[in-house]
Amino acid sequence: MRNDKVLRMGVIGVGRIGKIHAKSIATRTPGAVLAAVADVNLAAAAETAVKFNVPIITEDYHTLLADPNIDAVAICSATDTHAQIMQEAAAAGKHIFCEKPIDHSLEKIDAALATVEKAGVKLQIGFNRRFDANFRKVRQMVADGKIGELHILRITSRDPAPPPIEYVKVSGGMFLDMTIHDFDMARYLAGSEVEEVYVAAGVMVDPAIGEAGDVDTAVITLKFANGAIGTIDNSRKAVYGYDQRVEVFGSEGMVSAANNMPNTHVYSSADGVHSEKPLYFFLERYMESFVAEMQAFVQAVLQDEEPPVVGADGRIPVIIGLAAKKSYLENRPVKLSEIV
Amino acid sequence: MRNDKVLRMGVIGVGRIGKIHAKSIATRTPGAVLAAVADVNLAAAAETAVKFNVPIITEDYHTLLADPNIDAVAICSATDTHAQIMQEAAAAGKHIFCEKPIDHSLEKIDAALATVEKAGVKLQIGFNRRFDANFRKVRQMVADGKIGELHILRITSRDPAPPPIEYVKVSGGMFLDMTIHDFDMARYLAGSEVEEVYVAAGVMVDPAIGEAGDVDTAVITLKFANGAIGTIDNSRKAVYGYDQRVEVFGSEGMVSAANNMPNTHVYSSADGVHSEKPLYFFLERYMESFVAEMQAFVQAVLQDEEPPVVGADGRIPVIIGLAAKKSYLENRPVKLSEIV
Amino acid sequence: MRNDKVLRMGVIGVGRIGKIHAKSIATRTPGAVLAAVADVNLAAAAETAVKFNVPIITEDYHTLLADPNIDAVAICSATDTHAQIMQEAAAAGKHIFCEKPIDHSLEKIDAALATVEKAGVKLQIGFNRRFDANFRKVRQMVADGKIGELHILRITSRDPAPPPIEYVKVSGGMFLDMTIHDFDMARYLAGSEVEEVYVAAGVMVDPAIGEAGDVDTAVITLKFANGAIGTIDNSRKAVYGYDQRVEVFGSEGMVSAANNMPNTHVYSSADGVHSEKPLYFFLERYMESFVAEMQAFVQAVLQDEEPPVVGADGRIPVIIGLAAKKSYLENRPVKLSEIV
Amino acid sequence: MRNDKVLRMGVIGVGRIGKIHAKSIATRTPGAVLAAVADVNLAAAAETAVKFNVPIITEDYHTLLADPNIDAVAICSATDTHAQIMQEAAAAGKHIFCEKPIDHSLEKIDAALATVEKAGVKLQIGFNRRFDANFRKVRQMVADGKIGELHILRITSRDPAPPPIEYVKVSGGMFLDMTIHDFDMARYLAGSEVEEVYVAAGVMVDPAIGEAGDVDTAVITLKFANGAIGTIDNSRKAVYGYDQRVEVFGSEGMVSAANNMPNTHVYSSADGVHSEKPLYFFLERYMESFVAEMQAFVQAVLQDEEPPVVGADGRIPVIIGLAAKKSYLENRPVKLSEIV
Repeated sequence: MRNDKVLRMGVIGVGRIGKIHAKSIATRTPGAVLAAVADVNLAAAAETAVKFNVPIITEDYHTLLADPNIDAVAICSATDTHAQIMQEAAAAGKHIFCEKPIDHSLEKIDAALATVEKAGVKLQIGFNRRFDANFRKVRQMVADGKIGELHILRITSRDPAPPPIEYVKVSGGMFLDMTIHDFDMARYLAGSEVEEVYVAAGVMVDPAIGEAGDVDTAVITLKFANGAIGTIDNSRKAVYGYDQRVEVFGSEGMVSAANNMPNTHVYSSADGVHSEKPLYFFLERYMESFVAEMQAFVQAVLQDEEPPVVGADGRIPVIIGLAAKKSYLENRPVKLSEIV
Repeated sequence: MRNDKVLRMGVIGVGRIGKIHAKSIATRTPGAVLAAVADVNLAAAAETAVKFNVPIITEDYHTLLADPNIDAVAICSATDTHAQIMQEAAAAGKHIFCEKPIDHSLEKIDAALATVEKAGVKLQIGFNRRFDANFRKVRQMVADGKIGELHILRITSRDPAPPPIEYVKVSGGMFLDMTIHDFDMARYLAGSEVEEVYVAAGVMVDPAIGEAGDVDTAVITLKFANGAIGTIDNSRKAVYGYDQRVEVFGSEGMVSAANNMPNTHVYSSADGVHSEKPLYFFLERYMESFVAEMQAFVQAVLQDEEPPVVGADGRIPVIIGLAAKKSYLENRPVKLSEIV
Repeated sequence: MRNDKVLRMGVIGVGRIGKIHAKSIATRTPGAVLAAVADVNLAAAAETAVKFNVPIITEDYHTLLADPNIDAVAICSATDTHAQIMQEAAAAGKHIFCEKPIDHSLEKIDAALATVEKAGVKLQIGFNRRFDANFRKVRQMVADGKIGELHILRITSRDPAPPPIEYVKVSGGMFLDMTIHDFDMARYLAGSEVEEVYVAAGVMVDPAIGEAGDVDTAVITLKFANGAIGTIDNSRKAVYGYDQRVEVFGSEGMVSAANNMPNTHVYSSADGVHSEKPLYFFLERYMESFVAEMQAFVQAVLQDEEPPVVGADGRIPVIIGLAAKKSYLENRPVKLSEIV
Repeated sequence: MRNDKVLRMGVIGVGRIGKIHAKSIATRTPGAVLAAVADVNLAAAAETAVKFNVPIITEDYHTLLADPNIDAVAICSATDTHAQIMQEAAAAGKHIFCEKPIDHSLEKIDAALATVEKAGVKLQIGFNRRFDANFRKVRQMVADGKIGELHILRITSRDPAPPPIEYVKVSGGMFLDMTIHDFDMARYLAGSEVEEVYVAAGVMVDPAIGEAGDVDTAVITLKFANGAIGTIDNSRKAVYGYDQRVEVFGSEGMVSAANNMPNTHVYSSADGVHSEKPLYFFLERYMESFVAEMQAFVQAVLQDEEPPVVGADGRIPVIIGLAAKKSYLENRPVKLSEIV
């Protein structure tokens, strides 16, 4: 018989991000037990399972879905399998933590979300940055009215190095694989929906990215329902490391969040004043937020509350991303209502 | 007989900015002598002249232009008189320092510049921010190749308080009276010309500004000839003071400049860590740059060199401003070639 | 038969710091297994043991010492038991991680260290701050010659709130319970031994501390063997939180380390610019260093290398602390040679 | 007939600092007129006088003292002439601004101050740092009670390069020529008198300084009448520029002031994050404070108020400096009462 106070979770897919979630669930998520690991690469599944004494290892995630002792799954497999697994998991009555994006196709997203809703299971989307200490604080201050009415929102989001070209070809493009996090952040911080997008973009980092049909540098303007205006700037390559800053400006003030550094040392010499570069990339920068989002998911399920990042939160950034793509191709502002 | 090593200058218009230039010329500009002051308000002219022992005081600037002992004039009168006085001064063979903007009308600007060119006198436009220590350093680093190829340029430019509504009605609008400085800064930092502008803007600070036909908040996207993308955000009202920051990002790094503070104190208490707001407004923030631009003008004339900010530098930001206005009204990106 | 690649550890004493080490060993120290927990409070031992599935729970640490399957112990019990347990553990052939200070009595320390040396077991003292990312970086830069020859060393070390008076009465006084960390840090950063100490101190925070025979505020001057001069300032109560900064200054430059903040947000309003206070106290500030020191201990034992903080590193700061006390009482600089 | 609203000033000695004061008086001090310049080097006097259209030029300062049209003098001559000139100027009824230090001999200082008091003229000592925006703000916050009761005061004061050995030989030593500013700052910030001094010092920068009988590096502990403790660290050579920071810590918080930089640029590259060194030396760092102190002096005289830095403020730092010297030589804390 099940212990109702504990959530028995299975992780589906233990690539880079799946491994992180498996470890979080096993060692840092009170109330959760890592009960099963599935991966099409059985060796990968076994490696993770052995490390955390997980009894069930499988190459077929259906085994997890069929197991009545599994309460919830974390879907960390390839993006193009998310929607399908989500539907099956919901149908099997499992609560679902799903990595972003749900899919690149709005139809598939809608079908999957409909199944989830019908099944009445909990669903949380993996927009981990909402759980970062910096951005949480900024959001809290906006919500507390510290900046008054929001006027301007700025997000700088630059990766330290572009992904492999093979990834670029299948990722759905920069707006859907990278900026999607910023679209979510924009909605989260603004507390308002995006209505229109304008994109100026180009290929500045690597011509091969252009040949693969994508861009690597962009400045994106967002118009929000509440009248505020947002701007996001993206680059696939910041030589000084992962650049993740936000700024919200309103009638009563401004709140910004700077990058995180590996240490606070400052060196003053005859050559000037020197300090550290930001933490290298998302694994260094956002590790604690990956843990925190999983803790939040487990708590939401255990307490029967709505998870902090729901299905719609997974769907809307995809719409914004599709509008961004269209705006870039047609060089004009595009309303989200043109997409849906 | 004249001392050829000294530039005898007349100041035309001693409102707020004219007073600053008069004082600079009189006390902090080696090689220059303040020889005459003209203002339609004779009392104002007299007040400034007396303070600096200036022998010629007049309500009619034509007196200055007719005086063979005056080598150069600083045109600091109302904007709508700049082009006319510039033409007359050039025709009179005076070197010219002219406050920005030259005019809101391209036709008038072009006519004035043609006269200047024909007369062969020196002309410098008063884009003082180019002489600010922060921005000079950023520009120098860009020019030195420190950031490699420019990819993204960001300017934040927010005033502490909106101007009087009467000013808004005649100023040509925010893009021509305020953003014009940022358009110049963008060109200066990028070392490349703007080709296209897209504006998202609104009335968020004061409905009266909207009723006067203007906006008070904007996010502007610029596309440069060299492929780089720029973004400017403006507000007529930042409650924490004058916010004047820039950031240039490229293939080899990023250079940014933060605000200037009145002092460096930091107070740590049970309530958190507190420090000063930025310097209040342009008089506090840019005083040294007003002096430096005048010194540069005087040196350029005395050494018979091209001034650092020429007529075209006064003309192009007006074109960008007109394009910005059009972009806002039509909600689409506007090429500068549509304006000229 | 034992797996030689794994260090089976027992934790003796699971108060605040013992719990931290137990958790580190169980979940974040590759190569180590938490095999036993001892505490005079059996319930406390059981609580920790159950959490991490530890098979051996005892109120008598001799059980651990007698167990041939235990390779090493972490001594986290009350300070006045450290030396005794260290001797017994060494005699039993266990490798030892011991919390600081070893003891307040030099005689007891010397006796314990002699036993350890004779037994040939590894010993590491819990000066965790050496494993903090900020201070490691500063030390590394000093060691790399970045500041040239050391001239001046400054340490600011202030607690957010004084300990209970009952603790003050038995702790050995501020110099031995608090400044001892700074004495270690001074030696670590300087890479040179302290030869003389001068203390100016007083009771400024709480008269009850004075009544208990201790001080709560001090400025300490250190003279190093290499000629450098150090200054430490301590307070039992910084209302803005835990203040832990260092600065080393030399012939070629300066390296400093600032405090760590819970997030990087900055709030600019009409009232000024505001940001977070430092992390509250040592549990927040130094958690990662507690983990890192245990990892280093386990690696040192497994690889049969000298631990990074040896017995002498535990002994010398006590000598400095005793000299500091004498200096305060006699209001004169005291040489360490007067103590030993 | 004299205009009573204007202070006619003579500058005695136009070396480096005298030139600064002459320029301030002539161009930036409302209410003052530069009426005479005296220097034993007549050419130097003439150069300054011509620049500012000063009618009286003399190599003998007695000419100024004898001139009934001169209201006040700024004594900027060699230190060993200050006391003598001060006495003569006071006897002649001139108000006096005198550069620091008054003298190295307490007897001469006392004699000079007695004459000043008897003559009833105003006297201000040139401790210009009190007029620096950073330190004024810190002082103001202390005076406003923002840090509660003062516990610890820290001053870092390091020059970018040592003075010529010839200067070291006659300057009175580091404590009287350099630290004297910090002694004044300590009194100013603390609002309390120093009672005891302990110095740890050495020759680390240049052996020639030691051969000249002086030290070049020091850490100084101060005990204040109000119970607070201060620490000053000095170096004759900080390779990264002029290092001028203070920190006051008390029961309710801490206020610190950081260095001033020539600009706010920050450069982030693959090599780290880089910014400017502090302003090079006192001419760059304290220029505005030199102007502000002279404005304050002129205002005090014109309004018949006590100047902000009086004779005792010039005398006490000399006593502290003499105590510091004694402490260093005897390696023990020295009470000020041992000196006077």
